[in-house]
Amino acid sequence: MSNDPRQRLDRYVDQYAARARTMVASEIRALFAVAARPEIVSLAGGMPYITALPLDAVGELAGQLVTDCGAVALQYGSGQGDPGLRESICEVMALEGIRAHPDEVVVTVGSQQALDLMTRIFIDPGDVVLAEAPSYVGALATFASYQASVVHVPMDDDGIIPEALEETIARLAAAGKRIKFLYSVPTFHNPAAVTLPAQRRARVLDICRRSDLLLIEDNPYGLLGFDGEPQRALRADSADGVVYLGSFSKTIASGLRVGWALAPHGIRDKLVLAAESAVLCTSSLAQLMVREYLATQPWQDQIKVFCELYAERRDAMLSALEASMPTGCRWTRPGGGFYVWLKLPDGLNSKVMLPRAISARVAYVPGTGFYADGSGSEYLRLSFCYPEPARIKEGVRRLAGVVEAEIELRDTFGSWPADTPA
Amino acid sequence: MSNDPRQRLDRYVDQYAARARTMVASEIRALFAVAARPEIVSLAGGMPYITALPLDAVGELAGQLVTDCGAVALQYGSGQGDPGLRESICEVMALEGIRAHPDEVVVTVGSQQALDLMTRIFIDPGDVVLAEAPSYVGALATFASYQASVVHVPMDDDGIIPEALEETIARLAAAGKRIKFLYSVPTFHNPAAVTLPAQRRARVLDICRRSDLLLIEDNPYGLLGFDGEPQRALRADSADGVVYLGSFSKTIASGLRVGWALAPHGIRDKLVLAAESAVLCTSSLAQLMVREYLATQPWQDQIKVFCELYAERRDAMLSALEASMPTGCRWTRPGGGFYVWLKLPDGLNSKVMLPRAISARVAYVPGTGFYADGSGSEYLRLSFCYPEPARIKEGVRRLAGVVEAEIELRDTFGSWPADTPA
Repeated sequence: MSNDPRQRLDRYVDQYAARARTMVASEIRALFAVAARPEIVSLAGGMPYITALPLDAVGELAGQLVTDCGAVALQYGSGQGDPGLRESICEVMALEGIRAHPDEVVVTVGSQQALDLMTRIFIDPGDVVLAEAPSYVGALATFASYQASVVHVPMDDDGIIPEALEETIARLAAAGKRIKFLYSVPTFHNPAAVTLPAQRRARVLDICRRSDLLLIEDNPYGLLGFDGEPQRALRADSADGVVYLGSFSKTIASGLRVGWALAPHGIRDKLVLAAESAVLCTSSLAQLMVREYLATQPWQDQIKVFCELYAERRDAMLSALEASMPTGCRWTRPGGGFYVWLKLPDGLNSKVMLPRAISARVAYVPGTGFYADGSGSEYLRLSFCYPEPARIKEGVRRLAGVVEAEIELRDTFGSWPADTPA
Repeated sequence: MSNDPRQRLDRYVDQYAARARTMVASEIRALFAVAARPEIVSLAGGMPYITALPLDAVGELAGQLVTDCGAVALQYGSGQGDPGLRESICEVMALEGIRAHPDEVVVTVGSQQALDLMTRIFIDPGDVVLAEAPSYVGALATFASYQASVVHVPMDDDGIIPEALEETIARLAAAGKRIKFLYSVPTFHNPAAVTLPAQRRARVLDICRRSDLLLIEDNPYGLLGFDGEPQRALRADSADGVVYLGSFSKTIASGLRVGWALAPHGIRDKLVLAAESAVLCTSSLAQLMVREYLATQPWQDQIKVFCELYAERRDAMLSALEASMPTGCRWTRPGGGFYVWLKLPDGLNSKVMLPRAISARVAYVPGTGFYADGSGSEYLRLSFCYPEPARIKEGVRRLAGVVEAEIELRDTFGSWPADTPA
């Protein structure tokens, strides 16, 4: 037998759980290695621009925490999370109109873990999850890993369409399918970059209430709006029917891995048990860093700094798209968050086009990653969060050239069918 | 409807996944709130004595990491973990005779997450997991949460009994049961405090090889031996048949939540996908803190400091037990790790006795938490890792008084049946 383990076959291939067969590498993931090369302008990743943080102040805070309170900061904590942090989390959520008690909050390893645990406690194989079309790629991976059946609900420029939601619920009920929850990113959607207006929020809540359907409100970008006050969260108007997922990954630092779930007590109890069996507890040091950062740093001003920075990058991207994209492309004009969602001219396929984009030194995420059924090849997601404005403009310019070349190919040789595998 | 959420019934009670019904609060967990009261000597928890770390040096290191490398340390990392840390992990494992490549290592949120992910990718409901009797309470909770069927294999003072393992495998095979893996803590066992000698290691590996049975070697305490060199890991003699789980929780700091799995490549791939869908990645800051600590601090000397400190506490516990425990008690004499496993005189029940111990201001973990079938009420686990020696002696003295009173009760009123629920 070879000594290089990569040359061996996997002798455990027949022994994995059924769910392991539904765990597949995301399209973003396969991209990262290539997109990280410095000559490529990556409009692919959703990495916050950490450099804009006051790193000296955060470093001092981290050092002091360990030096002065190391016996707590480096020790195991409780499965539910630090009580002081949970209090601060309630204050953060108050900005979105949420009145909550720290006892209803469970701190998690990023909001990704909150979503994983929600799926773990609710989903039996085959259970239906409703999700917007498109939907967050990391959520789809989690749903797949628990063998959920994802049914998409269409969106328009104002987010999920209430009539379509109602119709989908009715259709599934008629087919005897059990819907466990609706997963939604109502504000500055990833990837679609749209936001549900207040009136639709009331309608969606009403539909969920009448259908006895639990709603998971995933809101990592809620405080990253470029104009005006934060949107009122869905959870603010339904304490019983909504589980709210929050994150400090975009407002403070993703590398700390601190997020949370706000849930009714029955669900909260299950989440704590699930968190304990999954990881025992979230890093105490990371939790206390967030707690002390919120207590001692001008965190709301820092969010404004982030918002201004991201708004400038959004503007750079939108003006570059306007200036260089060929006719037939359409894109969203986000009021916050990290992304622009772009529709290619008819007959173009973002997955097929990707290798040519990489050759032209620009990267994006093909739309197919955001649909459980692999559709969406006419879309792509562009991120403006990480590269500086000049790089964004250069990246869009390169992309426009690629799209133009694709249009020429299409006009010469005919189009790819929408479902062509890459 | 009441505004206090605790007064509401759980309206989602019929909607949870089947696995949520097997998630139950551990006996340790229920204890923690009480045992944390200062007047109680807690011999219950497995918390390392973090105060013995050079907190100034670790604090400085943390501060510098954020200040100088914050753009990386506070950013998302890869699902597999930092490459430099994975190299260092291979050097740590070399102390136990393991030759491994960083590519085979997956960094996890403590080794608890590694175990959770292994269970996630291998266990379909009803699949059999073999585990020592007794076994780590956190592992049993994880197995239960994936609806595994745990079958215990007896141990003696030298750990798992090879003949019993063979017999159990044969019996399950005859019954047509599918065994997915054997979960073992071969060194300084939690809670049994025994260690598998070299000769038995070879036999256990041989049995697993012949039965094509994957072995999970959970080894958080391997470097915390009080005499001589570290034991050779099982993984050192079976790269293909063993998944090794390691942790920095006991050798550096539990509050960072950094552990790892060392696995053959096929399993490694699945673990990375599962980790990504569970948490995206382990905290970059925590990973880089461990990497820099290993690179710049005298970490092996620090482990010696821990070992001397824990050895002194073990000695304090053993001499106190010797001095004060009534006839009929038996206990293990650990060569390392955190625990002593104590068998009560016939007819006593550690679960029934616990409230009286708490009244006498001493806490322990009843043996029943360490058996999937709820047996083990004649045992209890005592931890010597956290309290200082004088507290340990006082705790044991109090416990001895409680046991003596129980013996008197037994002699007066007769014994509790072994399976009496508390």
